[in-house]
Amino acid sequence: MSGNTFGTLFAVTNFGESHGPAIGCVIDGCPPGMPLSEADIQPDLDRRRPGTSRYVTQRQEEDKVEILSGVFEGHTTGTPICLLIRNTDQRSKDYSDIAKTFRPGHADYTYLQKYGLRDPRGGGRASARLTAPMVAAGAVAKKWLAQKYGTVFRGCMQQIGDVAIGFESWEHVPHNPFFAPVADVSQLETYMDALRKSGDSCGARIRVMASSVPVGLGAPLFDKLDADIAYAMMGINAVKGVEIGAGFASVAQRGSTHGDSPTPEGFRTNNAGGVLGGISSGQDLEVSIAIKPTSSILTPRETIDITGQPAEVVTKGRHDPCVGIRATPIAEAMLALVVIDHALRHRAQNGDVVAPVAVVPAARL
Amino acid sequence: MSGNTFGTLFAVTNFGESHGPAIGCVIDGCPPGMPLSEADIQPDLDRRRPGTSRYVTQRQEEDKVEILSGVFEGHTTGTPICLLIRNTDQRSKDYSDIAKTFRPGHADYTYLQKYGLRDPRGGGRASARLTAPMVAAGAVAKKWLAQKYGTVFRGCMQQIGDVAIGFESWEHVPHNPFFAPVADVSQLETYMDALRKSGDSCGARIRVMASSVPVGLGAPLFDKLDADIAYAMMGINAVKGVEIGAGFASVAQRGSTHGDSPTPEGFRTNNAGGVLGGISSGQDLEVSIAIKPTSSILTPRETIDITGQPAEVVTKGRHDPCVGIRATPIAEAMLALVVIDHALRHRAQNGDVVAPVAVVPAARL
Amino acid sequence: MSGNTFGTLFAVTNFGESHGPAIGCVIDGCPPGMPLSEADIQPDLDRRRPGTSRYVTQRQEEDKVEILSGVFEGHTTGTPICLLIRNTDQRSKDYSDIAKTFRPGHADYTYLQKYGLRDPRGGGRASARLTAPMVAAGAVAKKWLAQKYGTVFRGCMQQIGDVAIGFESWEHVPHNPFFAPVADVSQLETYMDALRKSGDSCGARIRVMASSVPVGLGAPLFDKLDADIAYAMMGINAVKGVEIGAGFASVAQRGSTHGDSPTPEGFRTNNAGGVLGGISSGQDLEVSIAIKPTSSILTPRETIDITGQPAEVVTKGRHDPCVGIRATPIAEAMLALVVIDHALRHRAQNGDVVAPVAVVPAARL
Amino acid sequence: MSGNTFGTLFAVTNFGESHGPAIGCVIDGCPPGMPLSEADIQPDLDRRRPGTSRYVTQRQEEDKVEILSGVFEGHTTGTPICLLIRNTDQRSKDYSDIAKTFRPGHADYTYLQKYGLRDPRGGGRASARLTAPMVAAGAVAKKWLAQKYGTVFRGCMQQIGDVAIGFESWEHVPHNPFFAPVADVSQLETYMDALRKSGDSCGARIRVMASSVPVGLGAPLFDKLDADIAYAMMGINAVKGVEIGAGFASVAQRGSTHGDSPTPEGFRTNNAGGVLGGISSGQDLEVSIAIKPTSSILTPRETIDITGQPAEVVTKGRHDPCVGIRATPIAEAMLALVVIDHALRHRAQNGDVVAPVAVVPAARL
Repeated sequence: MSGNTFGTLFAVTNFGESHGPAIGCVIDGCPPGMPLSEADIQPDLDRRRPGTSRYVTQRQEEDKVEILSGVFEGHTTGTPICLLIRNTDQRSKDYSDIAKTFRPGHADYTYLQKYGLRDPRGGGRASARLTAPMVAAGAVAKKWLAQKYGTVFRGCMQQIGDVAIGFESWEHVPHNPFFAPVADVSQLETYMDALRKSGDSCGARIRVMASSVPVGLGAPLFDKLDADIAYAMMGINAVKGVEIGAGFASVAQRGSTHGDSPTPEGFRTNNAGGVLGGISSGQDLEVSIAIKPTSSILTPRETIDITGQPAEVVTKGRHDPCVGIRATPIAEAMLALVVIDHALRHRAQNGDVVAPVAVVPAARL
Repeated sequence: MSGNTFGTLFAVTNFGESHGPAIGCVIDGCPPGMPLSEADIQPDLDRRRPGTSRYVTQRQEEDKVEILSGVFEGHTTGTPICLLIRNTDQRSKDYSDIAKTFRPGHADYTYLQKYGLRDPRGGGRASARLTAPMVAAGAVAKKWLAQKYGTVFRGCMQQIGDVAIGFESWEHVPHNPFFAPVADVSQLETYMDALRKSGDSCGARIRVMASSVPVGLGAPLFDKLDADIAYAMMGINAVKGVEIGAGFASVAQRGSTHGDSPTPEGFRTNNAGGVLGGISSGQDLEVSIAIKPTSSILTPRETIDITGQPAEVVTKGRHDPCVGIRATPIAEAMLALVVIDHALRHRAQNGDVVAPVAVVPAARL
Repeated sequence: MSGNTFGTLFAVTNFGESHGPAIGCVIDGCPPGMPLSEADIQPDLDRRRPGTSRYVTQRQEEDKVEILSGVFEGHTTGTPICLLIRNTDQRSKDYSDIAKTFRPGHADYTYLQKYGLRDPRGGGRASARLTAPMVAAGAVAKKWLAQKYGTVFRGCMQQIGDVAIGFESWEHVPHNPFFAPVADVSQLETYMDALRKSGDSCGARIRVMASSVPVGLGAPLFDKLDADIAYAMMGINAVKGVEIGAGFASVAQRGSTHGDSPTPEGFRTNNAGGVLGGISSGQDLEVSIAIKPTSSILTPRETIDITGQPAEVVTKGRHDPCVGIRATPIAEAMLALVVIDHALRHRAQNGDVVAPVAVVPAARL
Repeated sequence: MSGNTFGTLFAVTNFGESHGPAIGCVIDGCPPGMPLSEADIQPDLDRRRPGTSRYVTQRQEEDKVEILSGVFEGHTTGTPICLLIRNTDQRSKDYSDIAKTFRPGHADYTYLQKYGLRDPRGGGRASARLTAPMVAAGAVAKKWLAQKYGTVFRGCMQQIGDVAIGFESWEHVPHNPFFAPVADVSQLETYMDALRKSGDSCGARIRVMASSVPVGLGAPLFDKLDADIAYAMMGINAVKGVEIGAGFASVAQRGSTHGDSPTPEGFRTNNAGGVLGGISSGQDLEVSIAIKPTSSILTPRETIDITGQPAEVVTKGRHDPCVGIRATPIAEAMLALVVIDHALRHRAQNGDVVAPVAVVPAARL
């Protein structure tokens, strides 16, 4: 209710601040009996981790996860799973200036307005660091969905700043620091190096998808599967736009071409992005998100201070020049959290049967 | 939990089907003591009503709202407000064919998969007719927000199919059947007439905004104001994309230009669309949505029937050739429902004080 | 959140006032595919109906239920079921005095304090009349649970005022106006006739139980099955105490006698009342509730008026001299609503399997 | 939804097991700006702590609380407060036998049925040890309510086994190990010493109350203040009965004596226990609970093993002979958590005004 729990039946309550002693989450509702250890979670955390290339923040955090509860003799017990990640590389002195002025485009201003006080160290609760516990929770969700339905989640970079990136193969994604699905990322390296030198930042566009999603997940009116995906994606730090399937391109489409024809061999196309009437169709879930440029930049900006007087602000410290770069595993995790929640909700109302009626094989993009 | 209640503290539970005896909603949590009668609600329902021009469905519904509870001697009592709208122009025979085949792009298929049965009459629960109770509830929310904070909600058409529409003035919106903010809509009329004759449908792009929104509404992590807006908008029938502020344009922006500088006279720009870190900034809320083409069209389409065999489908009956045309009052209502819910949540945690700190005057786009 | 929705996965939103045009509820989350018509619901409403004997209020209401949505061709569709009951015998003039003074023991005072205004006609929203929609919703829950698990709900009167009532057989319950499980109710008739003449009212004690409840329903910490039962029962108008199993008698028991020994033939006893550690054991659910005397009585009482001045109050109009008499079907319905909600929650987390481990046959009291 | 979060606007998510590495909770929704440190929380934890007298379990736990988030420079920030308590005195070998048989009256049986596996060490998640985080969260709630409204929470022992305890003064409660409100506890010492020697256990009855509770908290239908109190109390381990105000005694009362007359000087009596129609009246909240005897006892009991075969069970290890003794601070905490949640809910719907109408001064018992 106060905005720190995600999901209902697979509910993840997130806590912590960027420069506090620890961050973490409590997962409530995980089905019992699933094998689970830290080793299932760490790989996704490592993909999101800062300090792994010169294109991301140089803060050094191991992001080592500890399971504090909910697992007994290597299996989930159905009780809350608390995941703890200690902060180790806080440098709060870097942020002393920030407490007195507002960064344009940053939550500094709104936090102070809302609460009357704020934790300025590393952005406090507004920091993208708080996505780490969600990536950890998402790894648990992914494991259960993979075992139960064979669902697979994937994400990749589509555009960094002005540079559009084509799609060659999912194979390339883990082999470059940009999560780009292409073999040659030299153009991106050049672009990002120039950007860093300029002291500025840029936006990004990410694609995230899921295949082998059970048919029938979602709800007809609110809590539509695509509505919950939009909620999850727009809730990721810096996201300003969300598309499902054809997205904004559907404005100029005709009904005769937009609708994906089902056939005995599968859907002919996937303009729906895997959702019809708020309910999963068995097509791949296809989501695209826009991420704005980082607001903490070295370039001096016009602003006001906390007394309302005109001021100039420059952000030192360690920041991502393109927060979108590390967003791929985050978006995957959030998508997995939406899907598992709806899988459990579906089971509540409809029992353990998935797709009571003959299913059209899923088309691929 | 099962997807038919929108909101938490101003919670709207929606019920009904397109061709059942009635549709309606129950509003739980409306503050007590507000003057309220059907006359406050009917005007917005009339804006959304079918049958008002040749560009929308010819179904004739008065959409007359009746207040069944929660109001005593003309004032809200703080108890649930039930709003009832009787269906009067059902023609269920029109839909007999539809029960046996799946319309490409329609929820026919996913409903049957999810529930094992479905009400095919007019799309049943999947019909956009179910947005009428939300428009009614939104009118209640708008009234309270207007009285309390002076908040104003507005929407307009930005694009129909291939035809982009400029912005001249809000004044024009009520004076044409397209909610277009321009004086001359002859191009739109020509476009829509040709589309209807072709038996096809098209998409649309809608802008919706709110001004005089209190600062500080939202939450830092989940239930961000923009996340809840995305959820609300993507939940409207046929919506495939949502943008806040600069939206997808922010991908190619630099941090030095994207961030809206606050000044003692107001924010310089509104790339944020009124939300920073998930919390309202006092800037106008600015939202843009993409609506896909209607899936019920006269053009024959390849599909399968409910036994999985190849089939062809043609949809007769009465349908909107561009479902986006009537979406403007719906989007306004959903935005109002998000804002009032967050206004009440804010009050729970922070008391009746809005913006404890000096506020930057809001910039306008 | 504002207190008018009961349950989470089988969520019942209640609306209406005693003397408004209608009362009713919306059930969200009912599993699809169950045969349902008004005939399944009316019998329980008739058991709760006013005006059926001289021992209850003489208000004449047919309490005819109408299904407005969620059922298609005689089967539930999985979408919201709106149940409407029109009020027909309002006599609002009876209540004109009540608007100015507070009845001792009545919600008059607290409503005015909470909301700043109130609907005084028949108690408005505080009226026990609002239990009728819950009885209707409970009938839907009972039907599903009976079909799925064979669960049976029963209730009876245990005590009226000073008169304790023994237990002879469930057979007697429908054959007297007190829901008493005894053949001879002449003592109760005499007692109630004298009470009515005295212009006073009295309390009652009700027993409600469920047999063939699946094992494993509930939750370990909060949302314990017994906690939710206590919540449901204490939420019924005028209830002041709730016991599960041995209840307050367990204070003086020893551990060596309180614990119900499981054996291959079943549990030896049922001090637990069917719940261990918040989770159903397969024993019968056994609940007992205390209902206070009606606060609307002919006997003059000391009070204050709405300006805070001393006053005297006498309540004319039509009232139950013992509200507990009609409480049996209400308590049964609320118990059924708790059980179905937990049955669906269990299914969400654990799938459609009930009792994965060998079950001890349930002992009976 | 899965039963590990208590409350809605002041939501406490509890995690951990009796013999896991740690237990704790996350408080979401605490108002910002309140001074808070571990020193505000530790005293209540110390009152509940095991090992403080020979009448309670001899497990030695410091129950040292650590604030991991949500506090900056000594003030709450409005973001989630994670409270961590490390387990230090686990002796898991004590419980090896228990894994194979079911203790009569214990959650052993139902956990295994529900989840298909369980953590037998110290009762795992079913252990009363999990009330410690609630006591910690309750201390935060108490502090806010005391500062805001002057609300005070108190509890005491009313009966241990067969020994009824009179009420002399609240002063005595902290000065004996039984939380008894009497000067001389020698009878209780004798009783408990004999009980311990017998290897058996006994029940208890606890009174808990709150004074200076704002008028108007609660809701008319569900989420009644008393319903939520019943839910909270019945959710405490081993509780089998709950009474508000006159409780079960109200069955034999008449309406003319039960109703508490309001006067300009206050209510004449407090049969209501501070709640009328589900809403607080300004009278003291008065609650009484029944706690069953501990199920882990040295006395041999008839049972079955996990294969369903007849067996005998004796529980060694460290256990409370009367689990009710340490329940007083737990019941106080749960009552405080109910009150703060309703205080915030009231504020959401009604703004920061408490009691808009002239208030009757609160009567005291």
